[in-house]
Amino acid sequence: MTSTWTIEERSFRLKDAKSYEGLFTLGSGNLHVRGSLEEHLDGCPQDVIVPPGDTERHVEHTVKWGAYVPGIYGRHPLLRRQIVNLPFFLDLAPHAGDEKLDMQSSTVKRYRRALDMRTATLTRSLEWRTKTGAVIAVRFERFVSAARPALCVQRLTLTSDRAVDVRVLGGIDARVTTLNADLFSSVTPGRAGHGGVTCAVRTNLGDDVFMQTSLDAPGAALKHTAAGRCARAEARLRLAPGVPAVVEKRTAVTTSRDQAPASPARVLADAAELSYDDLHAEHAAVWAGRWSDADVVIEGDAWSQRSLRASLYHLMRSLPRGDNRVAICAKGYAGELYQGLFFWDTEMFMLPFFLYTQPAAARALVDFRVQSLPGAQRTAARYKYAGARYAWTSDDKGDECCGPWVFKDHQVHVTADVAYALAHYARATGDQRYLEGPAARVLVETARYWMSRMDTRSGDKRPHLLGVMGPDEFTPMTSNNSYTNRLVRFALELAARHGAAAGAAAAERRAWARTAPALPIPRSADGGLVLQCEEFDGMAEMDINAEWKNRSIMFCWQVPQERMFRSKCMKQADVIMLMTLFPGEFTRAEKLRAWKHYLPYTTHDSSLSFGTHCIMAAHLGLEDEAWEFWRKAAGLDLEVKRRAPAEGIHIAAAGNAWQAAVLGFAGVATAMQSDVLSLTPRLPAGWKRLAFPLVWKGTPVSIEIARRRVSVTNRGRTSLKARICGRLRTIAPGATAAQAL
Amino acid sequence: MTSTWTIEERSFRLKDAKSYEGLFTLGSGNLHVRGSLEEHLDGCPQDVIVPPGDTERHVEHTVKWGAYVPGIYGRHPLLRRQIVNLPFFLDLAPHAGDEKLDMQSSTVKRYRRALDMRTATLTRSLEWRTKTGAVIAVRFERFVSAARPALCVQRLTLTSDRAVDVRVLGGIDARVTTLNADLFSSVTPGRAGHGGVTCAVRTNLGDDVFMQTSLDAPGAALKHTAAGRCARAEARLRLAPGVPAVVEKRTAVTTSRDQAPASPARVLADAAELSYDDLHAEHAAVWAGRWSDADVVIEGDAWSQRSLRASLYHLMRSLPRGDNRVAICAKGYAGELYQGLFFWDTEMFMLPFFLYTQPAAARALVDFRVQSLPGAQRTAARYKYAGARYAWTSDDKGDECCGPWVFKDHQVHVTADVAYALAHYARATGDQRYLEGPAARVLVETARYWMSRMDTRSGDKRPHLLGVMGPDEFTPMTSNNSYTNRLVRFALELAARHGAAAGAAAAERRAWARTAPALPIPRSADGGLVLQCEEFDGMAEMDINAEWKNRSIMFCWQVPQERMFRSKCMKQADVIMLMTLFPGEFTRAEKLRAWKHYLPYTTHDSSLSFGTHCIMAAHLGLEDEAWEFWRKAAGLDLEVKRRAPAEGIHIAAAGNAWQAAVLGFAGVATAMQSDVLSLTPRLPAGWKRLAFPLVWKGTPVSIEIARRRVSVTNRGRTSLKARICGRLRTIAPGATAAQAL
Repeated sequence: MTSTWTIEERSFRLKDAKSYEGLFTLGSGNLHVRGSLEEHLDGCPQDVIVPPGDTERHVEHTVKWGAYVPGIYGRHPLLRRQIVNLPFFLDLAPHAGDEKLDMQSSTVKRYRRALDMRTATLTRSLEWRTKTGAVIAVRFERFVSAARPALCVQRLTLTSDRAVDVRVLGGIDARVTTLNADLFSSVTPGRAGHGGVTCAVRTNLGDDVFMQTSLDAPGAALKHTAAGRCARAEARLRLAPGVPAVVEKRTAVTTSRDQAPASPARVLADAAELSYDDLHAEHAAVWAGRWSDADVVIEGDAWSQRSLRASLYHLMRSLPRGDNRVAICAKGYAGELYQGLFFWDTEMFMLPFFLYTQPAAARALVDFRVQSLPGAQRTAARYKYAGARYAWTSDDKGDECCGPWVFKDHQVHVTADVAYALAHYARATGDQRYLEGPAARVLVETARYWMSRMDTRSGDKRPHLLGVMGPDEFTPMTSNNSYTNRLVRFALELAARHGAAAGAAAAERRAWARTAPALPIPRSADGGLVLQCEEFDGMAEMDINAEWKNRSIMFCWQVPQERMFRSKCMKQADVIMLMTLFPGEFTRAEKLRAWKHYLPYTTHDSSLSFGTHCIMAAHLGLEDEAWEFWRKAAGLDLEVKRRAPAEGIHIAAAGNAWQAAVLGFAGVATAMQSDVLSLTPRLPAGWKRLAFPLVWKGTPVSIEIARRRVSVTNRGRTSLKARICGRLRTIAPGATAAQAL
Repeated sequence: MTSTWTIEERSFRLKDAKSYEGLFTLGSGNLHVRGSLEEHLDGCPQDVIVPPGDTERHVEHTVKWGAYVPGIYGRHPLLRRQIVNLPFFLDLAPHAGDEKLDMQSSTVKRYRRALDMRTATLTRSLEWRTKTGAVIAVRFERFVSAARPALCVQRLTLTSDRAVDVRVLGGIDARVTTLNADLFSSVTPGRAGHGGVTCAVRTNLGDDVFMQTSLDAPGAALKHTAAGRCARAEARLRLAPGVPAVVEKRTAVTTSRDQAPASPARVLADAAELSYDDLHAEHAAVWAGRWSDADVVIEGDAWSQRSLRASLYHLMRSLPRGDNRVAICAKGYAGELYQGLFFWDTEMFMLPFFLYTQPAAARALVDFRVQSLPGAQRTAARYKYAGARYAWTSDDKGDECCGPWVFKDHQVHVTADVAYALAHYARATGDQRYLEGPAARVLVETARYWMSRMDTRSGDKRPHLLGVMGPDEFTPMTSNNSYTNRLVRFALELAARHGAAAGAAAAERRAWARTAPALPIPRSADGGLVLQCEEFDGMAEMDINAEWKNRSIMFCWQVPQERMFRSKCMKQADVIMLMTLFPGEFTRAEKLRAWKHYLPYTTHDSSLSFGTHCIMAAHLGLEDEAWEFWRKAAGLDLEVKRRAPAEGIHIAAAGNAWQAAVLGFAGVATAMQSDVLSLTPRLPAGWKRLAFPLVWKGTPVSIEIARRRVSVTNRGRTSLKARICGRLRTIAPGATAAQAL
């Protein structure tokens, strides 16, 4: 049985190749590279260019290289700022005589590719029967060093059953484009000392990326060339029967935006004395620490265990550590869709995982919004509003890069989500000074935006937020979206409380405090149903089941937007999301009514929907529903055959899966919901044990939930209060409080 | 004093040049050419190409050539079907030695350019003092022959005060682009026999356009060359002191889509025996007939007289006569904006003028929708609806070419407007069989669309039209827009009445008849205010005057769309338009209330707004307001300094101006509103007399309105009933019924 630490591919299928490339992405936070085949596939050019006017031309890539450094952007002709797909540096292609190893045309047996999530290492092994009859055992290994975030290390081991002359070609290949456009203004391949090759590219926005790679094989003849957009290295060696031959490739990638500038040659030189195994050991040690901080153990359900680890693996891989100039992009730096840019995903879906497992690392994510405040101010001004309005699709400068106006203009809740996240950071870490320090200006400026964004109506003095798209993107322009309004209430109250620190006068703060509760949270006439927005119940009735017959294709691809926009159909949790964030403000009856009312209209076209529904179902004790949504939330990117990870990782859904396990099944209340650590577990029937670490306001805690017993261990130095299944306990340092279920 | 038949330019100003190009457009319905200078201006290239991705690059053309043949389309990289700007064939550039006449650098006096609308002839005269001291009187004349719609005729007369050698360069210049893109797949300049030059272009959609031009000057030496994208002709002649020398240029343009294919050589040959004056005489005779059918005489107000004639001139010029494969495009074939395609403008704003003045010519406009029904069926199917849905921006095939989804998807009323227009044609001409002949299938198919487009709401059995943009384009997605719903009611009732002719079963027709009155026309709680849509009064309050300080810039350029879309601001008449179409269905109090309610929110950013407001104000007896809106409606495209006609003619507004005069001030009820000719004049204070012809159900009528007397003369062969100021009269053929006012 495969370890629950491993994601495995047992046979190579061309149509799954692109999905595995996404799923097998490796990364150090600083440098990310998709899980492409070292020897590539013939006939799959990666430098396709589609002129912007050529709207009829659709390019379906069989495989898609992807190498990304967060913060390295170019200008795409159809978009604004776009993360750049950097030159491909993984190539390591064995040739026996004139025959190249090729997954399509070669005779290959015993294929296995596996991502070891514990050590963030990708390996591939296969048996290659060459045309001359030799049987060569081939093993590839690679990792992007967590200890040296600019370094990627690869090893190829070849063992032949007879003597064979082989050539292994590696190097750097800049024949790549980003979303079918060339974003480089210059490409300079070259040769380095000691047999290395280099490639420098400048993006069309002026950033420089420097790459250097070295190919090394004991006893091999090395050759290096640079031509066109390629720098090539070649190792020629003779395999002796039964004797493993090893080729190692190391690539360093540095950029003009690095905080500690270094040449790639320096990065390689620093590692020169260390063997592959040495480098791997220091890399694995970093990952061991991460898993120790964050792993969620699920016993009795290998599928859930592996799936959730895949989510945590990608979350921890994606985080640009120690760099608050960027956050985690929507595809987790495993693809170039969504421009490699930043959405509310970070605040509402990814941040909690980091906050409660690696709070120091989480700080960069909230600081990202603080440092990009000027961009949010520019965005507000562009719309003629006061203050700061965070962009729906934010670049690293905080400027709006969203194309379609309907999202850009109307999906305004992100600005309140940012305030919520700043408060969440402060409460979860216990660092309340944060809100009166760096974050205060964000609170003040966003409150000013909200005040200028509100409207009045004829014959009505109350404030209203009109022309709003809530989280549900199928209802584009509505009045008083309850999710948005509740978050804005929160943001105004927060700014009223802490805004003095950024110079907001008392009168202004009083206005915020007065306005917040006046913002309507619309309800049905009988008061029992929280309305998504004022219009929702007057929208066109729609029988989702009748309209959505082919469930293998998303709802939104089957029903024209024109119809969706006026109909009762929802892309994702909206009122349900509101209720999971503010569970104490709604009765169980209200939650159940909202659940029953909205679920038949919800298509979950958004990957952000499943996890939130899982949390609410667990909370309501709807066991079957919770389980059903868990399966969809947790397994999303492992759906290789459905091509789910082909364009990258649904990284917000990954964060949501962690929330489903910890906030849903373990029933942990967030620091926004409870001052003391509080949990009320509701394990799925098949789970024997759920165990995970948390950091609660600075105190590390271990939580163990078995079928009949829950225990909380205080691993910190001060005593901890915890409410376990409603019972308040005080736990001394080192002690465990247990309780029967 | 300048004749009210003439639009005059008294001095050349560079910044007005592009506006005059639009305003001075000549055309035969088949061939249209903007009023560009024969000798062009240096430094104003017309072949600028902006690559589609280059969104930052803005090209402001000082002057803009434009030659268009309705139905000749290309594929623009950023759009779908786009009318093609054809090669420039007007050039006729006098040179004295090496000096070229140039409006910027030459010494020019006594400049005058004038469009004689009566004969559709453009002349320009000036005195050119050359650098060598000669004073040359230059006179250009041109017309596009109404008698030979493929022929443009030009004449240049030069009279020098001393002997000068001059060269005159003419030809065909294909160095042109359309909206900064090259839509030609091939350009072939050449030389023809008898000293002519030719240019054949193929559009990138495969249409061929053949051009041939001949330059002729008695006693001149002629030279012809073809190179690159130019075919050039040159005439060298010696001017004797005081003796006028004449250069004539004739250009024929034929295309692969002509209904009666002919080569341009044939067109030229057919006219070869005729002098310029002969050709002009036959051309002027056609125009004399048109004016006799349609001229509206306004005495006592030269400004109004000239302005209205400018509207009628462009309407009559724009109509592609006898060709129902195209209609009148949004810029009246005087520019390439709006893609040279077709909107509701035709049905609701232009058609009435033709219906009541040249009903036979009007037939092509309604037939256009009948013949393009298959495109409307494709459009419905694309949205997954039954029947036929006319495109918001229709090409000649009836397919949707609108880019922005918000208009394309939601502004559905055009489909009902088409049904209204078909009925209008039938009622105005008395040709009731039309609706049970060619038009029946349109009625049936559009009714089917409407039935499938309607929704129900929870707890409500009534049909609703949701997600609708009415005529007011500032409220994008609303429920039960009253204009739309009323028109749809009309369309359903019409289909119920006539649909059997196209095979609609009785049950289906009964369903239409039952559904029509159930469609809501929303009203305020007290019933007295017709609501634009259900949402309008809940939209954000907006003080238009406070927001719109700089009235020289349109409102929509000063307030972000994001705000407009949720606010009480209106681009144009919506409820008011409804009430002018169905005046008998609303009380005077309801009309006044709607007027007072909506006007403060109306910015009239749409040129379609003024005329409709003028009609309603006249109808309500709001004299000052009627006059104010008349000034804006009638004078729009004469606002050269505001650049109004720079990109083409507001041709729907031109049609609306005619309606303002005839339906507004003369108070004529349309055949949709009254079975008998009915009029209730309300002349503006300054007008002494308003006189115009009409054709009422086949009977030609002359109407004369003086300050104290109105008379109707029956110019037909059967007796006519007419209701004059409420009094029903029967008028014998040849007789006049007069009534004191």
